[in-house]
Amino acid sequence: MAALSSWNDTPTRAAIVDFVERTTTEGSSDYLEPGDRIAVFDNDGTLWTEHPAYNQFLFAIDRLKAMAPDHAEWNDDPALGAILSGDMAAFGKTGMQGIIALVMATHAGMTTEEFAGIVRDWIATAEHPVYKRPYPATAFKPMLELLDYLRANGYTTFIVSGGGVEFMRAFTQDAYGIPPEQVIGSTGKTEFTTVDGKPVLMKLPEMDAINDGPGKPVGIEKFLGRRPVMAFGNSDGDLEMLQYTAAGHGPRFMALVHHDDADREAAYDKGALFGGLDKALTEARDCGWTVISMKDDFGTIFAS
Amino acid sequence: MAALSSWNDTPTRAAIVDFVERTTTEGSSDYLEPGDRIAVFDNDGTLWTEHPAYNQFLFAIDRLKAMAPDHAEWNDDPALGAILSGDMAAFGKTGMQGIIALVMATHAGMTTEEFAGIVRDWIATAEHPVYKRPYPATAFKPMLELLDYLRANGYTTFIVSGGGVEFMRAFTQDAYGIPPEQVIGSTGKTEFTTVDGKPVLMKLPEMDAINDGPGKPVGIEKFLGRRPVMAFGNSDGDLEMLQYTAAGHGPRFMALVHHDDADREAAYDKGALFGGLDKALTEARDCGWTVISMKDDFGTIFAS
Repeated sequence: MAALSSWNDTPTRAAIVDFVERTTTEGSSDYLEPGDRIAVFDNDGTLWTEHPAYNQFLFAIDRLKAMAPDHAEWNDDPALGAILSGDMAAFGKTGMQGIIALVMATHAGMTTEEFAGIVRDWIATAEHPVYKRPYPATAFKPMLELLDYLRANGYTTFIVSGGGVEFMRAFTQDAYGIPPEQVIGSTGKTEFTTVDGKPVLMKLPEMDAINDGPGKPVGIEKFLGRRPVMAFGNSDGDLEMLQYTAAGHGPRFMALVHHDDADREAAYDKGALFGGLDKALTEARDCGWTVISMKDDFGTIFAS
Repeated sequence: MAALSSWNDTPTRAAIVDFVERTTTEGSSDYLEPGDRIAVFDNDGTLWTEHPAYNQFLFAIDRLKAMAPDHAEWNDDPALGAILSGDMAAFGKTGMQGIIALVMATHAGMTTEEFAGIVRDWIATAEHPVYKRPYPATAFKPMLELLDYLRANGYTTFIVSGGGVEFMRAFTQDAYGIPPEQVIGSTGKTEFTTVDGKPVLMKLPEMDAINDGPGKPVGIEKFLGRRPVMAFGNSDGDLEMLQYTAAGHGPRFMALVHHDDADREAAYDKGALFGGLDKALTEARDCGWTVISMKDDFGTIFAS
């Protein structure tokens, strides 16, 4: 299986290959037409690292610092001032309000195309604080191979993430081979307007939809319009997406990427990052979904 | 040009062919990579008839009548009662409130999959009241050939319509060769829930986004994530989509389907149906966009 060469020769890899072969071999009782071969992937923690924090959060902090010289008023904001003074404990106490303030300060007030340019510049130059490599290189090599393997077998690969859709679309083609229209994420409101005589979309400081938890199947239905047959996640925020996928007719494949490799990446489980993992892991085991052990199943971790 | 055989040999057809050849011939200064070949189409009045009313409106009326025996209370509603008693003038006086009441009564309170099944049954059996043929046969044959021609040349064809996204997705694959994930439309809110132990999405009686007018570029950015290079519409509701497409870099093709054939379909212009055409037609002429004359450019009108 050169196609999945960064995977160890384990039952997990065998289960993936078996499923793909069953669903793509004409005459098989599980055969799926190419148009029905839809696979959805969470992004943070599933396709690339989410440790020690979501990469988009690290982007927002970098961005806040870069913009701060023009925004003296941010020093007086409890959340933004805490970040700018390096007091992340104080920022943490501002909770969801603080996160919203950070996102609104850094993700709105510009056109969609200006924002995409900012993200592309950051992705091309910034370094991950823990893994000391460019952010695209914090993607998991076995998962990139899996995306390629599925596409080579007629599957269409979609991202279904709680991350911002415009943030992700700035790099998913290069990093994952996934074009913008196959990325489903959280959305902010935009307004059609004219700047210097040119029609543009301006990003407003207002959320439109949060694509997480039960918002994931809602987003899948809104953007994609049908149930996937394969779904990959890594946390309780992916549970409803996995349940929704599992409940369709015909062959199904649901999997959780389990971060159990403290030496090579990170290990978190009961005390998982970002809203937990207990419910999803329990349901995976109860329902026979695949649990991908990064320690046992991944021969290599990072894309580079 | 066997590929566009239902088009007359006019400058309009020549302009389409010229654009496609310029953008798909390697070495041409207008060459576009396949991934950048994005063409968007309005649906009602552009791909199929909207005369004497949107087909989805006719569906809603059929559906209301079919459901009425279980809803005696509808007789007391000014809008729904008017429809059920056949008094369309009285219904017209209820305005947008009446239309919303009609949509909420017929498009909510069921799962997305139940709704899709209802639409598929209707599409397979109902007859258009004026053109006396199945609804898919009210599509315009030259436009179906155009979709095929573009796809054969590496373009991806998206629908961007004010119509309900779930209504359209129930038939766009069969009628237009366009899969669900390439349909952008107005959305209602849905809720992830469980029915008989199975995870489903329930359609709520609440709008999410209206994909018309300035909502079209907003929808394009949300779903597709980049500017199209070709855009086809037929009314003022398409104006912002055409402007947004026109304002991108590189080669562009914008067109309006002009309903000027009273003998074979319908003629409406200054006194257009559904919100007018004057602004779009004026801008098309001022900016050199293509105006497709159904009378002169279409050799055949309907799909069958």
